[in-house]
Amino acid sequence: MKEQIRKNFSSDNVVPACPAVMAALMEANADAAPAYGADAWTARLQDAASDLFERRVRIFPVATGTAANALALAATTPAFGAVLCDESAHIMQSECGAPDFYTGGARLVPIPSEDGRMTAEALAYTLDRLPVDDTQQNLPATLSLTQASEWGTVYRPATIADLAARARGRGMAVHMDGARLANAIAHLGCTPAEATWKAGVDVLALGATKNGAMAAEAVVFFDPARAEHFARRRKRGGHDWSKQRFLSAQLLAYLHDDLWLHNARQANAMAQRLAGGLFRHPGARLLYETQANEIFVLLPGPAVTHLRAAGFAFRDWRAPLGLNGTVVRLVTSYYTRIEDVDALLAALAAA
Amino acid sequence: MKEQIRKNFSSDNVVPACPAVMAALMEANADAAPAYGADAWTARLQDAASDLFERRVRIFPVATGTAANALALAATTPAFGAVLCDESAHIMQSECGAPDFYTGGARLVPIPSEDGRMTAEALAYTLDRLPVDDTQQNLPATLSLTQASEWGTVYRPATIADLAARARGRGMAVHMDGARLANAIAHLGCTPAEATWKAGVDVLALGATKNGAMAAEAVVFFDPARAEHFARRRKRGGHDWSKQRFLSAQLLAYLHDDLWLHNARQANAMAQRLAGGLFRHPGARLLYETQANEIFVLLPGPAVTHLRAAGFAFRDWRAPLGLNGTVVRLVTSYYTRIEDVDALLAALAAA
Amino acid sequence: MKEQIRKNFSSDNVVPACPAVMAALMEANADAAPAYGADAWTARLQDAASDLFERRVRIFPVATGTAANALALAATTPAFGAVLCDESAHIMQSECGAPDFYTGGARLVPIPSEDGRMTAEALAYTLDRLPVDDTQQNLPATLSLTQASEWGTVYRPATIADLAARARGRGMAVHMDGARLANAIAHLGCTPAEATWKAGVDVLALGATKNGAMAAEAVVFFDPARAEHFARRRKRGGHDWSKQRFLSAQLLAYLHDDLWLHNARQANAMAQRLAGGLFRHPGARLLYETQANEIFVLLPGPAVTHLRAAGFAFRDWRAPLGLNGTVVRLVTSYYTRIEDVDALLAALAAA
Amino acid sequence: MKEQIRKNFSSDNVVPACPAVMAALMEANADAAPAYGADAWTARLQDAASDLFERRVRIFPVATGTAANALALAATTPAFGAVLCDESAHIMQSECGAPDFYTGGARLVPIPSEDGRMTAEALAYTLDRLPVDDTQQNLPATLSLTQASEWGTVYRPATIADLAARARGRGMAVHMDGARLANAIAHLGCTPAEATWKAGVDVLALGATKNGAMAAEAVVFFDPARAEHFARRRKRGGHDWSKQRFLSAQLLAYLHDDLWLHNARQANAMAQRLAGGLFRHPGARLLYETQANEIFVLLPGPAVTHLRAAGFAFRDWRAPLGLNGTVVRLVTSYYTRIEDVDALLAALAAA
Repeated sequence: MKEQIRKNFSSDNVVPACPAVMAALMEANADAAPAYGADAWTARLQDAASDLFERRVRIFPVATGTAANALALAATTPAFGAVLCDESAHIMQSECGAPDFYTGGARLVPIPSEDGRMTAEALAYTLDRLPVDDTQQNLPATLSLTQASEWGTVYRPATIADLAARARGRGMAVHMDGARLANAIAHLGCTPAEATWKAGVDVLALGATKNGAMAAEAVVFFDPARAEHFARRRKRGGHDWSKQRFLSAQLLAYLHDDLWLHNARQANAMAQRLAGGLFRHPGARLLYETQANEIFVLLPGPAVTHLRAAGFAFRDWRAPLGLNGTVVRLVTSYYTRIEDVDALLAALAAA
Repeated sequence: MKEQIRKNFSSDNVVPACPAVMAALMEANADAAPAYGADAWTARLQDAASDLFERRVRIFPVATGTAANALALAATTPAFGAVLCDESAHIMQSECGAPDFYTGGARLVPIPSEDGRMTAEALAYTLDRLPVDDTQQNLPATLSLTQASEWGTVYRPATIADLAARARGRGMAVHMDGARLANAIAHLGCTPAEATWKAGVDVLALGATKNGAMAAEAVVFFDPARAEHFARRRKRGGHDWSKQRFLSAQLLAYLHDDLWLHNARQANAMAQRLAGGLFRHPGARLLYETQANEIFVLLPGPAVTHLRAAGFAFRDWRAPLGLNGTVVRLVTSYYTRIEDVDALLAALAAA
Repeated sequence: MKEQIRKNFSSDNVVPACPAVMAALMEANADAAPAYGADAWTARLQDAASDLFERRVRIFPVATGTAANALALAATTPAFGAVLCDESAHIMQSECGAPDFYTGGARLVPIPSEDGRMTAEALAYTLDRLPVDDTQQNLPATLSLTQASEWGTVYRPATIADLAARARGRGMAVHMDGARLANAIAHLGCTPAEATWKAGVDVLALGATKNGAMAAEAVVFFDPARAEHFARRRKRGGHDWSKQRFLSAQLLAYLHDDLWLHNARQANAMAQRLAGGLFRHPGARLLYETQANEIFVLLPGPAVTHLRAAGFAFRDWRAPLGLNGTVVRLVTSYYTRIEDVDALLAALAAA
Repeated sequence: MKEQIRKNFSSDNVVPACPAVMAALMEANADAAPAYGADAWTARLQDAASDLFERRVRIFPVATGTAANALALAATTPAFGAVLCDESAHIMQSECGAPDFYTGGARLVPIPSEDGRMTAEALAYTLDRLPVDDTQQNLPATLSLTQASEWGTVYRPATIADLAARARGRGMAVHMDGARLANAIAHLGCTPAEATWKAGVDVLALGATKNGAMAAEAVVFFDPARAEHFARRRKRGGHDWSKQRFLSAQLLAYLHDDLWLHNARQANAMAQRLAGGLFRHPGARLLYETQANEIFVLLPGPAVTHLRAAGFAFRDWRAPLGLNGTVVRLVTSYYTRIEDVDALLAALAAA
């Protein structure tokens, strides 16, 4: 089956887990191990994550990105607080109110942007409208940044540092939704430390599932003191696995030998190849710069129909007002190969 | 390693996943599959569960028992409601308030019992104190029964039917915490249908993790209408796996060829053998009838020390008032073998 | 003191309670009366409200508008639901997340408008983006309309009927924030029934505090079945007064002999007089049509300074982007007299 | 009407507000005043409360005791926390889960007692079962003490100090439900400071409604730092009155010239007189020592019937198991006079 063209560009979560992750699961399945995170894998994960980030961190594995985001936000946002985020943010658009739920009803405040990356001006404008002493409005408590963004763009660390400084100046914490952090780092060429805490990030939802894991994400606290009550929050959210070794083992494999980076580079490279081909296609219009592994492209309706008829899978996306044609999202992953991209481009050319 | 004596009786969640479950995970890891439960495994799981229960059900896989319980209770209990449960219930004692959280702050009302199984009289007494028109108190909304109970005892279906009828007569729903339902059914020799909906259960948290899965539980609605908004509740709880096939595949393996029952029978048989040996030990006193796979036994302090020195692992349990000695909990599982039980009994005899 | 010019135009909640309301409080303070709403005043209020609305209603008095809104929304919106409202809505901007809190974390979705009144097109656009089967987003559960709007404009009943029909067609309930409903009805000249349930409103937060009461608002259910569990919601919100007669007595006085309408007509008439004067002032620019008792006006900075120096009180309001000058809000009330308005206009003319 | 015998002993919340409170409401109803607590009455209340407690405090008026308790507990108890309280506590039994709601789902843990006053031993026993590092259970966050207790008994300050020290030793805050604190202090003869912060109380729900106010309670923080975000909590609870002067004015009258103490002394004296009469009645049995203004008495069924036939009102109370007869609760208040008590006793004697 693997010899066939892989035609599913729907998302990076439709692909299999990568072999190293599955092998790690099998290896972890030996004999008894203490439950609820007292196992050796989870202990090693603390070290591996601290090595990765060049700083002593606390890392808590969970199975989904929504859980990681919502639990992290609950640790920094009181019920009467507000989370400021880009209007496109996953926490705003795609988690059915998980942050609202986990924080006990805090408010998410969307900040408009051109391409999924909020600007310092837009943040300042919003903060200006939420003064601390206006108790009729929620208290700005957390700034949430999505890296890579929902539109496939990537913040520069300096931009993050600027945004984070503004938030911290207001006493806010800085959260990063890093569901695709690996793709962002692969694009930036910086270190994980530079992409996160050195730029002012306090707590990170670190993704792995979209980049090769079966089901493994993690909440990373760069200041261990902030993690004080996290175990109870995770437990009452139902996210404390009894056989936690099977989460930690995935993440250990993911961090081992930079698997995360290799996988992300492959995904990004395939996105670049795909974007390049689309750019050269006369009927296609790329809506955003392709920096990570997501491409949003305006295509003629018949071309879309033709691609689907040829077996390619991808999602329609709501087109911005005023555009004619169909906007589709194409997502590459570690699992995408050159021949898969080229097959899609060839089919498009034939449309 | 497997030739060694397995000395860990701490819990049924410290043991590995059984081979069939791991094999199913590997088999499910082939090529792309639709995300968020639109995959073929999840579809097949609906059929497999409906076959198991001899009725069309809706089944929603999640990764933990706490999630299954809390999500199920939230589906039947409004924020101003009350959940009535045995005082020993896992939802009361061991989930750090997950049901309180998921319901939006409903109250858990403990009902005292002798051995983890509430009586009809005790339920009636509590219901009598919570009249519907007393709006100063929470509205009794859900009766939660734990099967097998936290003390290793098992309700008869007729008892469940009696309790459920009383609850339903008050307009309440009936929830079953079936983290160890397999063990209960293995003890009872009845069908899953008889143990659940035929006795009045509306929604079931079905366990698999303690009985051979890696991390897989499920919420089962016997009346599909009750499941209407469950997908959104699960999503906002962060329990909707993008690669859900890996949850469903575990459960399919678990239900296939009665693996659940075989595993539970092994665990129960080992518990019987262990309880028999303990019963014959002059210094030991079993606190409850051993019906499933948990044993609570009062032992002389030196014997406990000796067992631990010999490498056996198990948990101290809070002794009821007035008992001298140490109460320990011994849990068997599908992974426990005759030689493991006999080794523990031999060590005890040598103490 | 009352002979002086009343110079406080800050809000309709800075003025005293009107004499009839205070007299009713004193009259209600005679001898013992059953607690928690079992008193005669609360019983009579049911009848008075049913007479007012020409339909059997259930009315629940509370002390604040935020409580009335949040409790009403909680009755129609599940935790996984969404409340759609104008972007300017009080529930969105000025209640520190009370609806988010009372609903258990539902999402408020703002709909942009020109003047505080959403259009059918804007509602349809938003609903189109929230399909029922997209479980990654909150379920649209309640449409909330503010009448009069936050910008002092008033919906026509036919417009409300159109909006409500679209919401009901999606299975949503329709809530009205009627903090200034009296002012809206005074403007429209319609009946309370026409302004509410005949136009599709299911539940109303009826204001009185801004229109002459001391502290009295009410939640009105036009379909008594929707009120089933409201008593428990109110109790757990801490809004169930033991001496509830003192809430009901205020509302009885408010409804008696159309006091609500007389008060609102006075407030509206004063707003008209004030708006007329401002319209004729060369440096002033009214931002919205004055239909109720709130005026938003752009004034030259020195004029604003002069008015304040002359003792007049009012609030600065955030000016829309691109306007030069200072936007202020001027609010009239039942307590405002012709001489008060004329004094302000004279001071402005002298600026 | 006031010449008649006052026969309603149902509760101290069925009686009118006392004249001084009503007069204060009328006096406060003069001209405009800033909204939402920026008024002069609320400012004066800060001083008056600080004088009363001999310490700089922050006091926040609200309209109900349930609101005061729930908001105070939310300020000291995280969602994953536990509130430890006597099993009879109002927060446990009579607020329909308001503390559960306001805290975001924290758990209330009942501590059994003989007479509504928990003992240090019982508290220690419960704390021993809730270790900080057992993250499967809620974190003990707040100790809540009810003074006077629900059974009409009163803690000695030394007892409170002992209980509070044990709680504080575990990092917990100490909350006092002082719905009837005035009655307790009248009994003890100590100062308000001795009854509260000098004994270790951090936050107090101070009652006035049961002791002469119309609807006024307050949350008092003895450490102003704890009050930091209280304004937002109160706002989102819907408990921030726009015309807050009408709450503060009640409390100012209540604190002025020790009205609170005079009223409480009258209520207590009437309870003593009533209890004395009951004690001498051969068929009556007092269940608890009468220290405040509530009496729980076992009476022969016919005597109860006779009293009701004579027009006296009071509530049946659930009798402890094993008692024959009817337990009724008789509550006195500032409004009860000698002739009212004597009339009841005479009617009982005639039964």
